[in-house]
Amino acid sequence: MLMKILVLNGPNLARLDIRDSSIYGDLDYTELRQLIESSCKSHGFEADIRQSDDEATIIGWLHEAADEKLPVIFNPAAFTHYSYAIRDAAALLTTPLIEVHLSNTMSREEFRHTSVISGVAKGTIAGFGPHSYVLAIIALKGILG
Amino acid sequence: MLMKILVLNGPNLARLDIRDSSIYGDLDYTELRQLIESSCKSHGFEADIRQSDDEATIIGWLHEAADEKLPVIFNPAAFTHYSYAIRDAAALLTTPLIEVHLSNTMSREEFRHTSVISGVAKGTIAGFGPHSYVLAIIALKGILG
Amino acid sequence: MLMKILVLNGPNLARLDIRDSSIYGDLDYTELRQLIESSCKSHGFEADIRQSDDEATIIGWLHEAADEKLPVIFNPAAFTHYSYAIRDAAALLTTPLIEVHLSNTMSREEFRHTSVISGVAKGTIAGFGPHSYVLAIIALKGILG
Amino acid sequence: MLMKILVLNGPNLARLDIRDSSIYGDLDYTELRQLIESSCKSHGFEADIRQSDDEATIIGWLHEAADEKLPVIFNPAAFTHYSYAIRDAAALLTTPLIEVHLSNTMSREEFRHTSVISGVAKGTIAGFGPHSYVLAIIALKGILG
Amino acid sequence: MLMKILVLNGPNLARLDIRDSSIYGDLDYTELRQLIESSCKSHGFEADIRQSDDEATIIGWLHEAADEKLPVIFNPAAFTHYSYAIRDAAALLTTPLIEVHLSNTMSREEFRHTSVISGVAKGTIAGFGPHSYVLAIIALKGILG
Amino acid sequence: MLMKILVLNGPNLARLDIRDSSIYGDLDYTELRQLIESSCKSHGFEADIRQSDDEATIIGWLHEAADEKLPVIFNPAAFTHYSYAIRDAAALLTTPLIEVHLSNTMSREEFRHTSVISGVAKGTIAGFGPHSYVLAIIALKGILG
Amino acid sequence: MLMKILVLNGPNLARLDIRDSSIYGDLDYTELRQLIESSCKSHGFEADIRQSDDEATIIGWLHEAADEKLPVIFNPAAFTHYSYAIRDAAALLTTPLIEVHLSNTMSREEFRHTSVISGVAKGTIAGFGPHSYVLAIIALKGILG
Amino acid sequence: MLMKILVLNGPNLARLDIRDSSIYGDLDYTELRQLIESSCKSHGFEADIRQSDDEATIIGWLHEAADEKLPVIFNPAAFTHYSYAIRDAAALLTTPLIEVHLSNTMSREEFRHTSVISGVAKGTIAGFGPHSYVLAIIALKGILG
Amino acid sequence: MLMKILVLNGPNLARLDIRDSSIYGDLDYTELRQLIESSCKSHGFEADIRQSDDEATIIGWLHEAADEKLPVIFNPAAFTHYSYAIRDAAALLTTPLIEVHLSNTMSREEFRHTSVISGVAKGTIAGFGPHSYVLAIIALKGILG
Amino acid sequence: MLMKILVLNGPNLARLDIRDSSIYGDLDYTELRQLIESSCKSHGFEADIRQSDDEATIIGWLHEAADEKLPVIFNPAAFTHYSYAIRDAAALLTTPLIEVHLSNTMSREEFRHTSVISGVAKGTIAGFGPHSYVLAIIALKGILG
Amino acid sequence: MLMKILVLNGPNLARLDIRDSSIYGDLDYTELRQLIESSCKSHGFEADIRQSDDEATIIGWLHEAADEKLPVIFNPAAFTHYSYAIRDAAALLTTPLIEVHLSNTMSREEFRHTSVISGVAKGTIAGFGPHSYVLAIIALKGILG
Amino acid sequence: MLMKILVLNGPNLARLDIRDSSIYGDLDYTELRQLIESSCKSHGFEADIRQSDDEATIIGWLHEAADEKLPVIFNPAAFTHYSYAIRDAAALLTTPLIEVHLSNTMSREEFRHTSVISGVAKGTIAGFGPHSYVLAIIALKGILG
Repeated sequence: MLMKILVLNGPNLARLDIRDSSIYGDLDYTELRQLIESSCKSHGFEADIRQSDDEATIIGWLHEAADEKLPVIFNPAAFTHYSYAIRDAAALLTTPLIEVHLSNTMSREEFRHTSVISGVAKGTIAGFGPHSYVLAIIALKGILG
Repeated sequence: MLMKILVLNGPNLARLDIRDSSIYGDLDYTELRQLIESSCKSHGFEADIRQSDDEATIIGWLHEAADEKLPVIFNPAAFTHYSYAIRDAAALLTTPLIEVHLSNTMSREEFRHTSVISGVAKGTIAGFGPHSYVLAIIALKGILG
Repeated sequence: MLMKILVLNGPNLARLDIRDSSIYGDLDYTELRQLIESSCKSHGFEADIRQSDDEATIIGWLHEAADEKLPVIFNPAAFTHYSYAIRDAAALLTTPLIEVHLSNTMSREEFRHTSVISGVAKGTIAGFGPHSYVLAIIALKGILG
Repeated sequence: MLMKILVLNGPNLARLDIRDSSIYGDLDYTELRQLIESSCKSHGFEADIRQSDDEATIIGWLHEAADEKLPVIFNPAAFTHYSYAIRDAAALLTTPLIEVHLSNTMSREEFRHTSVISGVAKGTIAGFGPHSYVLAIIALKGILG
Repeated sequence: MLMKILVLNGPNLARLDIRDSSIYGDLDYTELRQLIESSCKSHGFEADIRQSDDEATIIGWLHEAADEKLPVIFNPAAFTHYSYAIRDAAALLTTPLIEVHLSNTMSREEFRHTSVISGVAKGTIAGFGPHSYVLAIIALKGILG
Repeated sequence: MLMKILVLNGPNLARLDIRDSSIYGDLDYTELRQLIESSCKSHGFEADIRQSDDEATIIGWLHEAADEKLPVIFNPAAFTHYSYAIRDAAALLTTPLIEVHLSNTMSREEFRHTSVISGVAKGTIAGFGPHSYVLAIIALKGILG
Repeated sequence: MLMKILVLNGPNLARLDIRDSSIYGDLDYTELRQLIESSCKSHGFEADIRQSDDEATIIGWLHEAADEKLPVIFNPAAFTHYSYAIRDAAALLTTPLIEVHLSNTMSREEFRHTSVISGVAKGTIAGFGPHSYVLAIIALKGILG
Repeated sequence: MLMKILVLNGPNLARLDIRDSSIYGDLDYTELRQLIESSCKSHGFEADIRQSDDEATIIGWLHEAADEKLPVIFNPAAFTHYSYAIRDAAALLTTPLIEVHLSNTMSREEFRHTSVISGVAKGTIAGFGPHSYVLAIIALKGILG
Repeated sequence: MLMKILVLNGPNLARLDIRDSSIYGDLDYTELRQLIESSCKSHGFEADIRQSDDEATIIGWLHEAADEKLPVIFNPAAFTHYSYAIRDAAALLTTPLIEVHLSNTMSREEFRHTSVISGVAKGTIAGFGPHSYVLAIIALKGILG
Repeated sequence: MLMKILVLNGPNLARLDIRDSSIYGDLDYTELRQLIESSCKSHGFEADIRQSDDEATIIGWLHEAADEKLPVIFNPAAFTHYSYAIRDAAALLTTPLIEVHLSNTMSREEFRHTSVISGVAKGTIAGFGPHSYVLAIIALKGILG
Repeated sequence: MLMKILVLNGPNLARLDIRDSSIYGDLDYTELRQLIESSCKSHGFEADIRQSDDEATIIGWLHEAADEKLPVIFNPAAFTHYSYAIRDAAALLTTPLIEVHLSNTMSREEFRHTSVISGVAKGTIAGFGPHSYVLAIIALKGILG
Repeated sequence: MLMKILVLNGPNLARLDIRDSSIYGDLDYTELRQLIESSCKSHGFEADIRQSDDEATIIGWLHEAADEKLPVIFNPAAFTHYSYAIRDAAALLTTPLIEVHLSNTMSREEFRHTSVISGVAKGTIAGFGPHSYVLAIIALKGILG
């Protein structure tokens, strides 16, 4: 049986089709979901992939993860830089949370160099496009043994 | 035939045996090398693993990587936070350089939140202990694949 | 007849059961509600207690308070540190708004030392755990006479 | 036939009736809508005027504008100062987005001097009360001309 | 029998009669003392109320509180913003110290937004005029209760 | 009869012909003047358009506007960022002063994000190229209208 | 009859005899007192000249000035840079307080460039050695008519 | 015979008639000149009083003072806060230069708290309205003996 | 005959008995005095050991040292971080002043990293508990020969 | 035939005779001009050497250089540190502009460490006294071939 | 038998002969070594004194100290201010490390006020010239008992 | 006979062949050496040209220059921005040291705007590509001339 994990995506990530492909890669969101799903399966996870532009919805999902003790792969997108509310929700987890980014945020605009989430994440993977998620899945597998 | 890659480790990493295992994990440096080597092999790479406490030596290795067009997995350790000389060397590469950290630097002391290397790296993987290297190897495979 | 007041709670406060009890106290959210309710009653108030992880919902409640001229006891939780939208909503009130915090925010992480809400609050009560609310109720009674 | 444009208003703007008229002008929100509508009509636009206190809703509207290639007049209100999520959504547009403010934000509190939106806007109009919108409509006409 | 507590007031507080009543309230210092005294009595405390403009005197009183294990209600007034000597003295207490302010310091001049005392206080109550002390007395009762 | 207004242009604006047209638009200064003039006429204003690279000259013109109670449209160009002398002169006006910029200064270099003039302006219009002036003329009509 | 004024001197000023005469001038404190006294007399004032190294003593003297409605000439010496307690005391005055300094503090060490007192002083005179006091006496005469 | 001194006034000071009299006092510039002139005469100086809104003109006057070894009383007005060119000119003097301000700049806007001139002035007199000049004249007399 | 030296201790140091022994060591103040005394004797000094929580008292002692030309060993405790008045007093000495700290202040809270005293001290010894004083005594012996 | 170049000198440079020779060298301005002229001639340039204390005049000369496509050697003197207006003018050039300084500005006061001009200059030569100009002339020769 | 300790000296310390003797004292490096050696002997230590300008060499020596459990006296010289690599090496020690400086770094240039080493040192001794080492030897003796 | 000078090049400069030629010019390091050599010869110098990526090696060469009293032309490359150890070594020279840069560092990334070397250099030449060295050679000739 597969272990369930949550894969949470923050604001604007459902619109990869129209985001700058030189920064965010060539896949659209449907393709990204398929990549994550199949990668999860081949590593023994069942992915529950969700996306929201809404801070509160993401907070709710993190609560759900805390309640059901689900590991989380999380791309906070722009919330990375200011949502202390999401940080506090992520801090509730007793399971590992892995922060992922499609782009290498540290080589972009100054405001993207700060993450208010990293302080409560297990680890961070950034800059590998859609592959960042695959790496996070493998990382999770490594952690959960 | 295996593709050669450089795996470069910065200052103090050869002394994992005596570093705080709650931060840096339980492997000593010899075990870390073995993990990297075997992981490389199983992903089709031949790892040339090196460690130095010396800034100039690392710069030289990056030049070598630039000349021989070798991909690089690089844990700059404390050099992460101030060695612009290494940054300039890393910028010479036309092959991908992946920055790795054993610990999640963003959740440690303030001075560890700044990386002068990230700006010229393809991507960053931090916080997964020795497994950070394995993930970087897989990331490299994804990129070169 | 009891005077109605709004008691508004920001993100993650409904999950007191799983938050760090050394910081947030031993009551769960249901118990906190009961404490607030009974304390309100014994001071001549009818408490309308609400919690939301959603910035817009809280803004709406503050508008409601402004319209119905209801006094407000408000624990903005993590929104304390960045939600200027909530600040602008709170500024609409002509009735007193009291800012409360379970923990003593000024003795925690640096980012918790800033409140964008205090500037438009009547007063602040922080650090007394669930009792912070009781004190705010009594404060309100003192103000409203 | 009229060209459709989106006129988006951020948090607390529906409550102009109770905001400080010395800062925000004398019109209530219904009157503001009427002003915008009639001004649009007389300049050949059909205004789709919306207001939300909710960050995610505004992000959704900006996605809609991106999809339908609608020009946008946008008063981000307090979101101006911190919502990088909205900034990222606005960056998706290929049509012009004009930032408007009722008040002259640069002559108010220090925190209102920073706009995280301006960097992705075509231009900014601030300080003319409800007339700021009329000017933005005319500006749009000039651009789309 | 009543439990003894110390109520300590910092510089200029004895001169409430001539301080700006729109900020500090309408009571003079004698009336404030009477309010504190009677409020203490009705909550089972015997108040030892003291005021000094002198840093060293206040340090001495905090030492006394530490020695006699007395709870403390403390309005550090302007010392709030720079007296690390008082902070170190307050840190000696094993009984709770509650920081009070007549005004809401966070909505006044920038320099009043910093408290070097809060870091070693149990909690803070600010902005309720003389009633801030009454709330602190009740808070103390809750803690010791 | 037309109402006279001053249209003041700061340093380097007479040389639009050689400034970067991707930032400042395609008109040269003569064409800009004609645009402003005709736009003024059609809105019932007589434009007195002036340009100077000299701080003192601009200060003098602002004094003239103060004496003759003339409304002012003002593009301070680079003086925007440091001329407190011009700010003090602009503060003398009892008629409205509108700050205009050809480019969207907030999306350019960091030093262009600060305006020492905005604090004493009625409003700001930036980013619409030469059309910024037309919008300011219309804004003025709205204010004086 | 002569009008009484207070001339208050802060820490270390009684030891002018051993302070650096290139900065503080050639008079010792007794001579400075004589200069102030005679200068006061010739301008119709009776000087009550005091010096203290003690913050609380100076606060008390400012209270006395507030009670007796005495004008004050005040050299806060090193307290200039951090004593908010003295600032709050000075703010109680309804008579003018003039800040004086022997040296030109703005041309000395960085920490001497900040005055927490100036914000509540009528005016400041700095850099004229003992003559700074004479000028302050004359200034007071001008103000009090 | 009278000793000649230069009294230099910076930008906007000729327009005292329309500046905020609560800040700058009740005299207009002609009256200010007369006050300075007569005060100079009665102290044995012949005042050469000049005003300019032009940085270069003031620099020229300072050169003249340097050449003719004239003492200078200087109100740099808004140039106080940024004109390093004037600072360098003032540094050429071998005679004393006294900085004067009508208002107490340290109690006004933040940007007025910095003086780039003070570092090369003999002393500073601020906050006494037109009387600041009289005090400077007396100060000069004291220095020149 | 023994040479007299002053050993001055700042606020809260007399209460070593109740300060955190993991930071301040195991001796109480009486034992610290005895250690200093006997160490002085064995190095040829007669120690005049004093402690005060009062800034002015310490300033007075420094004046005494200046007058009697006594060398000083000084633990300014919390005054280290803000008392410019003490700094100015210490600057009067023509004999060496050695700054000592029980704890290694640079490895504690951020605010303890700044010393306003060091700038006028001969040298600093920090982190050796009570032994810091012994080292200072030996240092003094080295300097005084 | 000689190629014409502009050599522009900013405020106070005509007064080298009275500036601190330990910083600015021993030549007076006439001698500096002669040095520049003869050095130009011997390198095939005809120098048009100008000096002004006036920002606008220098802006005008830079416009002239832009129009006539003249290379420029420019010592902005104190304008270096704040004149964005001159920066914008310098940015208009399509010919090389070389920034020169007599002194090594980076080893002087903090405010001299910032150049707002360097960002639009080809290169910078500082610290060689009058010889800085000679080097710039040779540099120009190198660039123009 | 003597206990072995390492005495490590950072960059440029071997060249004391040509460093500013008013800052670094009168001994040359050979004499400094002799002083340290003899002082060690007389306190029961055998000093292994080393100097290197090379960061990696010093890191290696600290590793050696960690392996052989040798106490360390360390003058990091300029590495004090930026070498996080050395800090990480020093953090490996389980024996005490004492930081020494010849000069009182806190009274020199601003950049010398920061030590990245102190955070992992037992204590600091600065300002006593060569005698700083002697004090450190005695300090070590005190610690090691 | 030719006077010997040292020409020192910092990290990565030997790899000019693969550095961005739009920033660093078209010459490779061998050609740069030849340019320097021949330019030295024609100005009467014998160039000892060295390059190292190693901080300690460069420090050693600066010591050598100090010992042999050799003038130095120094391109510190990335060490410019953080190597205080090299700064201290450069400060030992009694002969002139000239700082050179191929690129105009002040117009590149923010971190390149700071030089910790300039404070101890005679002068700086930046932005002229390989020709920067030629200018430095001529500068040296002028100084030693």
